[in-house]
Parts: sequence; structure tokens; C-alpha cells
Amino acid sequence: MKYLHTMIRVSDPDRTIAFLEVLGLKEVRRMENAAGRFTLIFLAAPGDLNAPGERAEAEVELTYNWPTEGEAPETYTGGRNFGHLAYRVDDIYATCERLMAAGYTIHRPPRDGHMAFVKTPDGISIELLQEGVLPPQEPWASMANTGTW
Amino acid sequence: MKYLHTMIRVSDPDRTIAFLEVLGLKEVRRMENAAGRFTLIFLAAPGDLNAPGERAEAEVELTYNWPTEGEAPETYTGGRNFGHLAYRVDDIYATCERLMAAGYTIHRPPRDGHMAFVKTPDGISIELLQEGVLPPQEPWASMANTGTW
Repeated sequence: MKYLHTMIRVSDPDRTIAFLEVLGLKEVRRMENAAGRFTLIFLAAPGDLNAPGERAEAEVELTYNWPTEGEAPETYTGGRNFGHLAYRVDDIYATCERLMAAGYTIHRPPRDGHMAFVKTPDGISIELLQEGVLPPQEPWASMANTGTW
Repeated sequence: MKYLHTMIRVSDPDRTIAFLEVLGLKEVRRMENAAGRFTLIFLAAPGDLNAPGERAEAEVELTYNWPTEGEAPETYTGGRNFGHLAYRVDDIYATCERLMAAGYTIHRPPRDGHMAFVKTPDGISIELLQEGVLPPQEPWASMANTGTW
């Protein structure tokens, strides 16, 4: 028995993929099902990748349900039973800097040099954990939280 | 960068652990924080385990927020942005049989010998995927769905 993936629903796949790519994930494969009117897109962190085209060791699966023609896509909200997805990163400051430069909010900045929280466009919380701990560093050390995560 | 875990909140850790153990997961480690009044419990599938006590390759983290003394624990509901956790299993019929014998509902039975859905006590959907495909087999082949997943 082995973990395969966590599936999240996305209202706009391109927007979510853009966010996840800035975070550092790579698209592994995708499957379009025109009859079922959905698209599945699998992404993984570089440290989980296998050979190109092969399933990665751990993936996040995006499900995009195609809206009825002429209608807006479904929008998604969260519930409290799900908490977050967590990834280990090599340099939490570099990751957060990249995300901020791309216009994303660091909801819980890495004040302690170890932990940060960000969110996908549909509100899925992502925890970033530094391998080890970096010395506290500005602007992160005095950056306040924003909203919830 | 590497996937670490998916965190879910649990209203009753023992009840969730009992379910996940019948599913096939093992507890890897736990951390009690009396000051913060929470307990974190990490479980993993046998195929993701490393040496005893070490972090597994992919984990599910249970967060139990201790209720105020004399009060009931928080109850959790779900949202549509989160879909499910998926695990590969060696024998999907054996896994589902074990779960049913322990009194759990197979929300989406493995009619096709490949895919099933079950849910944790707090409503987190879990997808079971057979390694390959097994020949269709009763009672699964003609078992109806129950509820949503």
C-alpha cells in the first residue's frame, strides 16, 4: 500500500497551475475526458519526480469540471476537516520571495525561518517547511500574518 | 522540494486512527503540545515507511485540537475545494472486505476491480486504487453506491 496523491478541485486550472509552478511543482501528466467533461492534471515536487511521463512518488491531482457551455465554472470553498498540503523546501525565503514577486500572498510568513503558509486560488492551504531552520531574516522576521490558512 | 504530508483535522483521534489502521496505515509518530492544547499524529502506508521513528516518504497528519475542558470537541465538515487522498492497494477486495467487516461503509464499491471510495469519520474522502485491475467479483460487482464521497 502506497500514497499516490491528494486531489483538489480547481475552478481555473491555468490559474492554479501558474501558482503551483511558482511554488516549484511541475506538471507530470494530464488526462482530458471530453465525454465526462473533466480534465485531470497531476503535478509533483522535483524531489518526488520519476522518469518523464511516469507517475511521481507523490502527486497533487487537479480536477477541473468543465462548466456547462456559456456558464461560469463552479466556484469552490473549503471545509474545516481538510487542513493543508505540506512540502519541504530547500530555501523557504527564496520560495516566498518568488511567490510574492508573482503577486501571491504569504498568509503566514516564515518569521521563524522554518514554516510558511500560502493558498491556492481556490483556497487550499499549503504549508512550506524549511529543511532545517534558517536564521531569522527581514522582511520576513517582522511580517504580519494575513487572513487565515 | 518534496511532498511531506496532507493534514486533516479530527474530532476524535482514536476513531480516525482505528479507521486508518483497518485501511492499512500505521502510526509513525505523534507529538502532544499541552500548552497549545493540540496533538499531531502522523500515519503512513506500509509502502511509504522508512526506518521506525523516522518520517515516512508520504504521511497523513491528524490534528486534534483539544476541546475546552467540559466541552465537546469541535466537529468538522468538508468543502468542495478538497477532493480526496488516494492510496494504491495490492488487493482492493481484501481492503474493502476488511473495512466492511469492521463496520465501515464502502461509499463507492470496487465494481470495476480497480477503484473504491471510503471516508474517514470526519468525512475526508479516501480513494483506493488497485495496482492493475482485478476481475469483477461479487459482492462488489453488483453493490450500489452509498451517499457521496
